[in-house]
Amino acid sequence: MAVRKYDLSRVYRLLEPGPVVLLTTASKGRPNVMTMSWHMMVEFEPPLLACVVSEANFSFGALRSTGEAVIAIPARRLADKVVKVGNCSGSDTEKFKRFGLTPLAARQVQPPLIKECFCNLECRVKDTSLVKRYNLFILEVLNAWIDPAQKNPKTLHHRGYGSFVVDGPIIKLKSRMR
Amino acid sequence: MAVRKYDLSRVYRLLEPGPVVLLTTASKGRPNVMTMSWHMMVEFEPPLLACVVSEANFSFGALRSTGEAVIAIPARRLADKVVKVGNCSGSDTEKFKRFGLTPLAARQVQPPLIKECFCNLECRVKDTSLVKRYNLFILEVLNAWIDPAQKNPKTLHHRGYGSFVVDGPIIKLKSRMR
Repeated sequence: MAVRKYDLSRVYRLLEPGPVVLLTTASKGRPNVMTMSWHMMVEFEPPLLACVVSEANFSFGALRSTGEAVIAIPARRLADKVVKVGNCSGSDTEKFKRFGLTPLAARQVQPPLIKECFCNLECRVKDTSLVKRYNLFILEVLNAWIDPAQKNPKTLHHRGYGSFVVDGPIIKLKSRMR
Repeated sequence: MAVRKYDLSRVYRLLEPGPVVLLTTASKGRPNVMTMSWHMMVEFEPPLLACVVSEANFSFGALRSTGEAVIAIPARRLADKVVKVGNCSGSDTEKFKRFGLTPLAARQVQPPLIKECFCNLECRVKDTSLVKRYNLFILEVLNAWIDPAQKNPKTLHHRGYGSFVVDGPIIKLKSRMR
Protein backbone atom coordinates (compact mmCIF):
# COMPACT_ATOMS: atom_id res chain seq x y z
CA MET A 1 0.00 0.00 0.00
CA ALA A 2 1.26 3.41 -0.92
CA VAL A 3 -0.28 5.37 1.89
CA ARG A 4 -0.85 9.02 1.22
CA LYS A 5 -1.05 11.70 3.88
CA TYR A 6 -4.56 13.04 4.31
CA ASP A 7 -5.25 16.56 5.47
CA LEU A 8 -6.20 16.72 9.15
CA SER A 9 -8.77 19.42 8.47
CA ARG A 10 -10.75 16.91 6.42
CA VAL A 11 -10.71 13.98 8.82
CA TYR A 12 -14.25 14.79 9.98
CA ARG A 13 -15.55 13.89 6.51
CA LEU A 14 -14.46 10.31 7.10
CA LEU A 15 -15.75 9.80 10.62
CA GLU A 16 -18.88 11.98 10.64
CA PRO A 17 -20.86 9.62 8.39
CA GLY A 18 -20.69 7.00 11.13
CA PRO A 19 -18.75 4.11 9.59
CA VAL A 20 -17.86 0.99 11.51
CA VAL A 21 -14.17 1.27 12.35
CA LEU A 22 -11.38 -0.93 13.61
CA LEU A 23 -9.41 0.26 16.61
CA THR A 24 -5.87 -1.00 17.01
CA THR A 25 -3.83 -0.85 20.20
CA ALA A 26 -0.45 -2.20 21.26
CA SER A 27 0.54 -3.36 24.69
CA LYS A 28 4.06 -4.56 25.44
CA GLY A 29 4.74 -4.86 21.74
CA ARG A 30 1.67 -6.98 21.06
CA PRO A 31 -0.85 -5.48 18.65
CA ASN A 32 -4.58 -6.01 18.97
CA VAL A 33 -7.66 -4.85 17.10
CA MET A 34 -11.35 -4.46 17.91
CA THR A 35 -14.47 -3.42 16.03
CA MET A 36 -16.16 -0.18 17.10
CA SER A 37 -19.16 1.93 16.17
CA TRP A 38 -19.54 4.22 19.15
CA HIS A 39 -17.49 7.22 18.05
CA MET A 40 -18.11 10.79 16.95
CA MET A 41 -16.27 13.95 15.96
CA VAL A 42 -15.74 16.52 18.70
CA GLU A 43 -13.60 19.19 16.99
CA PHE A 44 -12.55 19.92 13.41
CA GLU A 45 -8.92 20.92 13.85
CA PRO A 46 -6.90 19.61 15.37
CA PRO A 47 -9.35 16.75 14.88
CA LEU A 48 -10.70 15.46 18.16
CA LEU A 49 -13.05 12.54 18.47
CA ALA A 50 -14.81 10.71 21.24
CA CYS A 51 -15.27 6.98 21.47
CA VAL A 52 -16.59 4.45 23.94
CA VAL A 53 -14.45 1.38 24.58
CA SER A 54 -16.03 -0.88 27.13
CA GLU A 55 -14.05 -2.23 30.06
CA ALA A 56 -15.29 -5.60 28.84
CA ASN A 57 -13.10 -5.20 25.74
CA PHE A 58 -9.53 -6.47 26.00
CA SER A 59 -8.46 -3.28 24.17
CA PHE A 60 -9.62 -1.13 27.08
CA GLY A 61 -6.54 -1.90 29.17
CA ALA A 62 -4.12 -1.15 26.36
CA LEU A 63 -5.87 2.08 25.42
CA ARG A 64 -6.02 3.20 29.03
CA SER A 65 -2.41 2.39 29.85
CA THR A 66 -0.66 3.45 26.63
CA GLY A 67 -2.94 6.33 25.59
CA GLU A 68 -2.49 5.41 21.94
CA ALA A 69 -4.66 3.90 19.23
CA VAL A 70 -5.14 3.79 15.49
CA ILE A 71 -8.60 4.08 13.99
CA ALA A 72 -8.76 2.26 10.67
CA ILE A 73 -11.78 2.47 8.38
CA PRO A 74 -12.65 -0.68 6.47
CA ALA A 75 -14.58 -0.76 3.20
CA ARG A 76 -17.27 -3.25 2.36
CA ARG A 77 -14.93 -5.94 1.09
CA LEU A 78 -13.64 -6.32 4.66
CA ALA A 79 -17.12 -6.81 6.17
CA ASP A 80 -16.54 -10.46 6.95
CA LYS A 81 -13.28 -9.74 8.79
CA VAL A 82 -14.83 -6.81 10.62
CA VAL A 83 -17.43 -9.12 12.11
CA LYS A 84 -14.94 -11.83 12.97
CA VAL A 85 -12.65 -9.31 14.68
CA GLY A 86 -15.63 -8.23 16.76
CA ASN A 87 -16.59 -11.74 17.74
CA CYS A 88 -13.42 -12.77 19.52
CA SER A 89 -11.12 -11.32 22.12
CA GLY A 90 -7.49 -10.26 22.02
CA SER A 91 -7.10 -12.01 25.35
CA ASP A 92 -6.79 -15.35 23.58
CA THR A 93 -6.54 -14.51 19.86
CA GLU A 94 -3.80 -13.04 17.69
CA LYS A 95 -6.31 -11.27 15.53
CA PHE A 96 -3.97 -9.80 12.92
CA LYS A 97 -2.63 -13.24 12.07
CA ARG A 98 -5.89 -15.09 12.40
CA PHE A 99 -7.83 -12.81 10.09
CA GLY A 100 -5.08 -11.94 7.64
CA LEU A 101 -4.81 -8.28 8.51
CA THR A 102 -1.47 -6.65 7.80
CA PRO A 103 -0.01 -4.34 10.44
CA LEU A 104 2.02 -1.38 9.18
CA ALA A 105 4.15 0.86 11.38
CA ALA A 106 2.55 4.16 12.28
CA ARG A 107 4.61 7.33 12.43
CA GLN A 108 3.94 8.63 15.92
CA VAL A 109 2.21 5.86 17.85
CA GLN A 110 2.94 2.22 18.65
CA PRO A 111 -0.38 0.67 17.52
CA PRO A 112 -0.21 -0.43 13.88
CA LEU A 113 -2.04 0.88 10.86
CA ILE A 114 -4.04 -1.75 8.98
CA LYS A 115 -2.90 -2.10 5.40
CA GLU A 116 -6.23 -3.39 4.12
CA CYS A 117 -8.19 -0.36 5.38
CA PHE A 118 -8.62 2.66 3.12
CA CYS A 119 -8.00 5.12 5.92
CA ASN A 120 -5.88 5.05 9.09
CA LEU A 121 -5.86 7.67 11.82
CA GLU A 122 -3.06 7.78 14.39
CA CYS A 123 -4.56 8.88 17.68
CA ARG A 124 -3.44 9.88 21.15
CA VAL A 125 -5.76 9.94 24.16
CA LYS A 126 -6.30 13.55 25.13
CA ASP A 127 -8.85 13.38 27.91
CA THR A 128 -9.87 10.56 30.23
CA SER A 129 -12.19 12.47 32.55
CA LEU A 130 -15.26 10.51 31.41
CA VAL A 131 -13.59 7.10 31.23
CA LYS A 132 -14.55 6.09 34.73
CA ARG A 133 -18.22 7.02 34.32
CA TYR A 134 -18.87 6.06 30.68
CA ASN A 135 -15.72 4.41 29.24
CA LEU A 136 -15.60 7.51 27.05
CA PHE A 137 -12.23 8.58 25.66
CA ILE A 138 -11.37 11.81 23.87
CA LEU A 139 -8.72 11.20 21.20
CA GLU A 140 -6.69 13.59 19.10
CA VAL A 141 -5.85 12.57 15.54
CA LEU A 142 -2.12 13.14 14.98
CA ASN A 143 -1.75 11.78 11.46
CA ALA A 144 -4.20 10.60 8.83
CA TRP A 145 -3.39 8.26 5.95
CA ILE A 146 -5.44 7.08 3.02
CA ASP A 147 -4.88 4.38 0.45
CA PRO A 148 -5.22 6.15 -2.90
CA ALA A 149 -5.72 2.79 -4.62
CA GLN A 150 -9.13 2.37 -2.98
CA LYS A 151 -11.41 4.62 -4.97
CA ASN A 152 -14.81 5.61 -3.56
CA PRO A 153 -14.82 3.01 -0.79
CA LYS A 154 -18.24 1.99 0.52
CA THR A 155 -18.30 1.98 4.30
CA LEU A 156 -20.38 -0.12 6.68
CA HIS A 157 -22.84 1.11 9.31
CA HIS A 158 -23.84 -1.25 12.08
CA ARG A 159 -27.51 -1.82 12.90
CA GLY A 160 -27.11 -4.57 15.45
CA TYR A 161 -26.48 -8.32 15.40
CA GLY A 162 -24.60 -8.58 12.14
CA SER A 163 -26.88 -6.29 10.16
CA PHE A 164 -25.04 -3.54 8.30
CA VAL A 165 -26.10 -0.78 5.93
CA VAL A 166 -23.62 -0.32 3.11
CA ASP A 167 -23.11 3.15 1.66
CA GLY A 168 -25.45 3.85 -1.21
CA PRO A 169 -25.60 6.79 -3.59
CA ILE A 170 -24.04 10.17 -2.81
CA ILE A 171 -26.27 13.20 -3.17
CA LYS A 172 -25.12 16.80 -3.25
CA LEU A 173 -27.17 19.69 -1.95
CA LYS A 174 -26.40 23.36 -1.76
CA SER A 175 -25.11 23.93 1.74
CA ARG A 176 -22.88 26.28 3.67
CA MET A 177 -22.46 23.78 6.50
CA ARG A 178 -18.90 22.61 6.75
CA MET B 1 -48.82 10.37 12.28
CA ALA B 2 -49.63 7.39 14.40
CA VAL B 3 -46.49 7.26 16.44
CA ARG B 4 -45.64 3.92 17.92
CA LYS B 5 -43.54 3.41 21.01
CA TYR B 6 -40.14 1.95 20.24
CA ASP B 7 -38.27 -0.21 22.70
CA LEU B 8 -35.51 1.68 24.50
CA SER B 9 -33.21 -1.33 24.36
CA ARG B 10 -33.15 -1.01 20.57
CA VAL B 11 -32.50 2.71 20.26
CA TYR B 12 -28.80 2.08 19.57
CA ARG B 13 -29.74 0.44 16.28
CA LEU B 14 -31.05 3.76 15.04
CA LEU B 15 -28.22 6.02 16.16
CA GLU B 16 -25.20 3.73 15.84
CA PRO B 17 -25.21 3.79 12.02
CA GLY B 18 -24.43 7.51 12.16
CA PRO B 19 -27.42 9.20 10.53
CA VAL B 20 -27.76 12.95 10.26
CA VAL B 21 -30.32 13.96 12.88
CA LEU B 22 -32.39 16.98 13.77
CA LEU B 23 -32.20 18.26 17.34
CA THR B 24 -35.16 20.18 18.68
CA THR B 25 -35.14 22.39 21.75
CA ALA B 26 -37.65 24.75 23.35
CA SER B 27 -36.87 27.92 25.23
CA LYS B 28 -39.64 29.99 26.80
CA GLY B 29 -42.21 28.13 24.75
CA ARG B 30 -40.44 28.73 21.48
CA PRO B 31 -39.32 25.62 19.60
CA ASN B 32 -36.19 25.48 17.51
CA VAL B 33 -34.40 22.86 15.47
CA MET B 34 -30.86 22.31 14.25
CA THR B 35 -29.04 19.75 12.09
CA MET B 36 -26.45 17.56 13.81
CA SER B 37 -24.05 14.77 12.93
CA TRP B 38 -21.71 14.73 15.91
CA HIS B 39 -23.37 12.16 18.12
CA MET B 40 -22.75 8.60 19.29
CA MET B 41 -24.15 5.94 21.58
CA VAL B 42 -22.65 5.71 25.06
CA GLU B 43 -24.76 3.03 26.76
CA PHE B 44 -27.39 0.53 25.63
CA GLU B 45 -29.96 0.73 28.40
CA PRO B 46 -31.07 3.06 29.58
CA PRO B 47 -29.88 4.48 26.28
CA LEU B 48 -27.29 7.19 26.73
CA LEU B 49 -25.78 9.18 23.93
CA ALA B 50 -23.20 11.91 23.56
CA CYS B 51 -23.47 14.84 21.20
CA VAL B 52 -21.58 18.02 20.46
CA VAL B 53 -23.62 21.19 20.12
CA SER B 54 -21.41 24.18 19.45
CA GLU B 55 -21.77 27.37 21.43
CA ALA B 56 -22.06 28.99 18.01
CA ASN B 57 -25.43 27.26 17.57
CA PHE B 58 -28.48 29.10 18.84
CA SER B 59 -29.70 25.75 20.22
CA PHE B 60 -26.79 25.60 22.65
CA GLY B 61 -28.37 28.07 25.06
CA ALA B 62 -31.72 26.28 25.10
CA LEU B 63 -30.13 22.87 25.57
CA ARG B 64 -27.88 24.16 28.34
CA SER B 65 -30.60 26.00 30.23
CA THR B 66 -33.51 23.58 29.86
CA GLY B 67 -31.61 20.28 29.78
CA GLU B 68 -34.09 18.87 27.27
CA ALA B 69 -34.03 17.97 23.60
CA VAL B 70 -35.61 15.70 21.04
CA ILE B 71 -33.48 13.89 18.49
CA ALA B 72 -35.46 13.27 15.32
CA ILE B 73 -34.14 11.13 12.49
CA PRO B 74 -35.06 12.23 8.97
CA ALA B 75 -35.20 9.94 5.97
CA ARG B 76 -33.93 10.82 2.54
CA ARG B 77 -37.07 12.60 1.40
CA LEU B 78 -36.31 15.30 3.98
CA ALA B 79 -32.75 15.89 2.75
CA ASP B 80 -33.54 19.30 1.33
CA LYS B 81 -35.11 20.50 4.57
CA VAL B 82 -32.28 19.03 6.64
CA VAL B 83 -29.79 21.19 4.76
CA LYS B 84 -31.95 24.30 4.95
CA VAL B 85 -32.44 23.84 8.69
CA GLY B 86 -28.66 23.67 9.02
CA ASN B 87 -28.07 26.79 6.98
CA CYS B 88 -29.95 29.28 9.10
CA SER B 89 -30.19 30.19 12.76
CA GLY B 90 -33.03 30.04 15.23
CA SER B 91 -31.94 33.48 16.39
CA ASP B 92 -33.79 35.04 13.46
CA THR B 93 -35.78 32.21 11.89
CA GLU B 94 -38.91 30.31 12.93
CA LYS B 95 -37.62 27.14 11.36
CA PHE B 96 -40.64 24.90 11.91
CA LYS B 97 -42.88 27.31 10.04
CA ARG B 98 -40.38 28.29 7.41
CA PHE B 99 -39.54 24.74 6.38
CA GLY B 100 -42.92 23.15 6.87
CA LEU B 101 -41.95 20.89 9.76
CA THR B 102 -44.78 19.87 12.07
CA PRO B 103 -44.13 19.97 15.82
CA LEU B 104 -45.88 17.32 17.93
CA ALA B 105 -46.05 17.36 21.70
CA ALA B 106 -43.59 15.02 23.39
CA ARG B 107 -44.58 13.07 26.47
CA GLN B 108 -41.92 14.03 29.00
CA VAL B 109 -40.04 16.99 27.57
CA GLN B 110 -40.92 20.44 26.24
CA PRO B 111 -39.11 20.30 22.88
CA PRO B 112 -41.37 18.99 20.13
CA LEU B 113 -41.19 15.80 18.15
CA ILE B 114 -41.06 16.29 14.37
CA LYS B 115 -43.95 14.62 12.63
CA GLU B 116 -42.13 14.18 9.32
CA CYS B 117 -39.25 12.22 10.88
CA PHE B 118 -39.48 8.44 11.12
CA CYS B 119 -38.03 8.36 14.61
CA ASN B 120 -38.13 10.73 17.58
CA LEU B 121 -36.17 10.36 20.81
CA GLU B 122 -37.13 12.38 23.89
CA CYS B 123 -33.93 13.21 25.74
CA ARG B 124 -32.82 14.76 29.00
CA VAL B 125 -29.33 16.06 29.62
CA LYS B 126 -27.64 13.76 32.09
CA ASP B 127 -24.11 15.05 32.31
CA THR B 128 -22.60 18.43 31.47
CA SER B 129 -19.09 17.88 32.77
CA LEU B 130 -17.54 18.11 29.30
CA VAL B 131 -19.69 20.96 28.01
CA LYS B 132 -17.26 23.66 28.99
CA ARG B 133 -14.25 21.97 27.36
CA TYR B 134 -15.82 20.39 24.27
CA ASN B 135 -19.51 21.42 24.08
CA LEU B 136 -20.14 17.72 24.70
CA PHE B 137 -23.45 16.73 26.29
CA ILE B 138 -24.45 13.32 27.62
CA LEU B 139 -28.18 12.71 27.04
CA GLU B 140 -30.48 10.01 28.30
CA VAL B 141 -33.27 8.81 26.01
CA LEU B 142 -36.53 8.78 27.97
CA ASN B 143 -38.96 7.78 25.24
CA ALA B 144 -38.54 6.63 21.66
CA TRP B 145 -41.19 6.86 18.94
CA ILE B 146 -41.29 5.60 15.40
CA ASP B 147 -43.64 6.24 12.53
CA PRO B 148 -44.77 2.79 11.42
CA ALA B 149 -45.93 4.25 8.10
CA GLN B 150 -42.34 4.88 7.03
CA LYS B 151 -41.05 1.48 5.99
CA ASN B 152 -37.30 0.89 5.65
CA PRO B 153 -36.36 4.57 5.73
CA LYS B 154 -33.05 5.47 4.10
CA THR B 155 -30.99 7.74 6.32
CA LEU B 156 -28.45 10.39 5.38
CA HIS B 157 -24.78 10.52 6.39
CA HIS B 158 -22.96 13.83 6.10
CA ARG B 159 -19.61 14.03 4.32
CA GLY B 160 -19.15 17.77 4.40
CA TYR B 161 -20.43 20.75 2.43
CA GLY B 162 -23.77 19.38 1.32
CA SER B 163 -22.48 15.96 0.31
CA PHE B 164 -24.42 13.07 1.83
CA VAL B 165 -24.26 9.31 1.52
CA VAL B 166 -27.69 7.74 1.42
CA ASP B 167 -28.20 4.29 2.92
CA GLY B 168 -27.63 1.55 0.38
CA PRO B 169 -28.19 -2.19 0.66
CA ILE B 170 -28.39 -4.00 3.97
CA ILE B 171 -26.13 -7.01 4.41
CA LYS B 172 -26.40 -9.61 7.14
CA LEU B 173 -23.45 -11.47 8.58
CA LYS B 174 -23.26 -14.04 11.31
CA SER B 175 -22.36 -12.12 14.43
CA ARG B 176 -22.72 -12.33 18.18
CA MET B 177 -22.07 -8.61 18.60
CA ARG B 178 -25.11 -6.84 19.92
